[in-house]
Amino acid sequence: MPVNRREFLAAGVAAGLLTHWENTVTFAENLDPTNLTKANIPTPALLVDLEAFESNVKSMAEHCRKSGRGFRPHAKTHKCPEIAKRQMAAGALGICAATVPEAEALVAAGITGVLLTSPIVEPAKIARMIALVKRENTTMLSVGHPLEIELLSQAAAAAGVDVDVLVDVDIGDRRTGILPGQPALELAQFIAKHKRLHIRGVQSYAGHASHVVGWEAREKSSREAMGKSVATRELLNKSGFDADILSGGSTGTYNIDSTVDGVTELQVGSYVFMDIDYRRIGGKTSGENYSDFQHSLTVLATVVNATHPDRVSVDAGTKALDTTTNWKPEAKGWPGLNYNRGGDEFGILTLEPGAKLPRIGDRIEFIVPHCDPNVSLYDRIYATRGDKVEAIWPIAARREARTI
Amino acid sequence: MPVNRREFLAAGVAAGLLTHWENTVTFAENLDPTNLTKANIPTPALLVDLEAFESNVKSMAEHCRKSGRGFRPHAKTHKCPEIAKRQMAAGALGICAATVPEAEALVAAGITGVLLTSPIVEPAKIARMIALVKRENTTMLSVGHPLEIELLSQAAAAAGVDVDVLVDVDIGDRRTGILPGQPALELAQFIAKHKRLHIRGVQSYAGHASHVVGWEAREKSSREAMGKSVATRELLNKSGFDADILSGGSTGTYNIDSTVDGVTELQVGSYVFMDIDYRRIGGKTSGENYSDFQHSLTVLATVVNATHPDRVSVDAGTKALDTTTNWKPEAKGWPGLNYNRGGDEFGILTLEPGAKLPRIGDRIEFIVPHCDPNVSLYDRIYATRGDKVEAIWPIAARREARTI
Repeated sequence: MPVNRREFLAAGVAAGLLTHWENTVTFAENLDPTNLTKANIPTPALLVDLEAFESNVKSMAEHCRKSGRGFRPHAKTHKCPEIAKRQMAAGALGICAATVPEAEALVAAGITGVLLTSPIVEPAKIARMIALVKRENTTMLSVGHPLEIELLSQAAAAAGVDVDVLVDVDIGDRRTGILPGQPALELAQFIAKHKRLHIRGVQSYAGHASHVVGWEAREKSSREAMGKSVATRELLNKSGFDADILSGGSTGTYNIDSTVDGVTELQVGSYVFMDIDYRRIGGKTSGENYSDFQHSLTVLATVVNATHPDRVSVDAGTKALDTTTNWKPEAKGWPGLNYNRGGDEFGILTLEPGAKLPRIGDRIEFIVPHCDPNVSLYDRIYATRGDKVEAIWPIAARREARTI
Repeated sequence: MPVNRREFLAAGVAAGLLTHWENTVTFAENLDPTNLTKANIPTPALLVDLEAFESNVKSMAEHCRKSGRGFRPHAKTHKCPEIAKRQMAAGALGICAATVPEAEALVAAGITGVLLTSPIVEPAKIARMIALVKRENTTMLSVGHPLEIELLSQAAAAAGVDVDVLVDVDIGDRRTGILPGQPALELAQFIAKHKRLHIRGVQSYAGHASHVVGWEAREKSSREAMGKSVATRELLNKSGFDADILSGGSTGTYNIDSTVDGVTELQVGSYVFMDIDYRRIGGKTSGENYSDFQHSLTVLATVVNATHPDRVSVDAGTKALDTTTNWKPEAKGWPGLNYNRGGDEFGILTLEPGAKLPRIGDRIEFIVPHCDPNVSLYDRIYATRGDKVEAIWPIAARREARTI
């Protein structure tokens, strides 16, 4: 054990650290990114690499433009109005929200065309959505059950507000929505009995298709699922409804669904960040690694213990790194270093043969296994360009409280 | 599919819901618990049952008093100053913190005797801890590496502050701390060279012992581990240090460690809430189910989809219910109902033979598999007595920003 200063400095302490603290004392208080770099962001921290992120935003927008489709990206991935604004600037029709607080944060940030994609059957939440529609009348809900329709209709009537809705159709995901075909038509007819509600189209999420490994198998799965939604939209239109919209798709199926006739817009989410869960599904042309979009999201952690020769501890455990998938966080630039769960507060890094252990004080970026729930663990994203922090974006839509 | 109002009302809609929304519109904004009950808390929500919670707080305090030990409960479990205050009122010596933001939130709430149990080697965090010590000089840190000692010493000298520290000893957990015996003594001698730092004792967490299934096996594991810490404390005292404190233990080993000579205080955390991960370890007298403390923590969710006869969806997925352990959330009062992961936003409930599915709009409380990371997903706890919300407690120490 090194017990004198010279020894432990030599043992891997960045000498700069020792005199640097005075300059960085106040940054956490005022969230001023000035002078913040990857060397002094407090860890654990959520980082987005702006070059990769901007490339992803642009790339998806271009794909949709070339394919003649709209896109309404999903905020469940990022919960961040600053990111939503950039997606809108790239040409998005609006932004999807999975929760009422997400919808509230987006509307508060001036986003138009917000679509709540999840069912809600709590009267208070219905009332909050009606308040949003009153404020911004391009806000829409997707509905899949008569209860939601009744609650929505009563609240809309009481507020004197007209509400646009999509019929949420369950095309195999088995989590939300009404069954396609005749049941969806009957639900549309039920909606039509409520004069404040107006059907704009159909929504479908083929969650079971989005992560199918191998592009051909995924194409088959998504085409089969989206076909049901296309047919349902046609049935509605033949029955006199104006179902202009068919909103669906995912980052895994964006270049499949954009070739399906009748799909009008994509609800892509993860493409802004990417993650290990998507990388492994394989691309159309890129083989085993799905590389259409770049990894922009990482968690930055610090090595805080190096007592044992076979491992070190970092300050990012299950509260800081989502490990609910089968995949492990990947240490960027540290080949042969394996992340293992070390409880709620810590991760344990171990070695493959020939690899090198980091030293105490070292800072390591991890590519996250699954972006959505990982973002949800944080209050803010440090937006970096190179090593420098350019901005700190609040993950405002994470909050449970209404924001307007 | 029920498409007329009478049918779907009959099909399980609580009729009250339809007219109730006007009364509940504003509650989310002002966090006023008045008129909030389990029937209208917005879901998903984190709930603590006050009767069970108060019983747990009292029970642990009485055990420690009878055993002649102190207790410094761990805030990593609850991150909630309101709970810390109640633990202090029950006689705690102080409160443990796993992160600097936790320590900051506790000191801001007037808690004395805060102990940071995790290592920190970031200069800015060290400076923040020194600011806390300056404000409240009973605040302590545990240290396990010369780097932390150097940083702490420099910051303390610059601020003109004396800092009490515990030597963090690794007794088999292999995550933090210095090895027991001679390495710990050498570290203490290194600390002694820094005049602003004062050794108050030793800290050890036998995380590998806390969840050993079976009381006898757990006792053996914890005694063996804590023995190393006791011996290290004795070595320090023989060598001229005043190591008055030996802080350690967990909810799983509280009634083991409190019988180990030399252990002065317990760092118990989960006992205020309990969870499935602790229930299964078995009690000293209660057999397979560890029932020394009551389950006070639940997640409240709403059934938002009932399209299929074999399942329903609730609005609590991986963002709302921690599923990083091997155990599943348990639906309170719904025997034979199984929670399955349904992605980030939803849980899927399926049935064992003979059991009954809930209906759309039903609200279900789930006992959580693992309390600490589950709390960390939320901003607030609804404190309930019976069905009524008595208070809403901010999970203030969850925030990344400093709070003072």
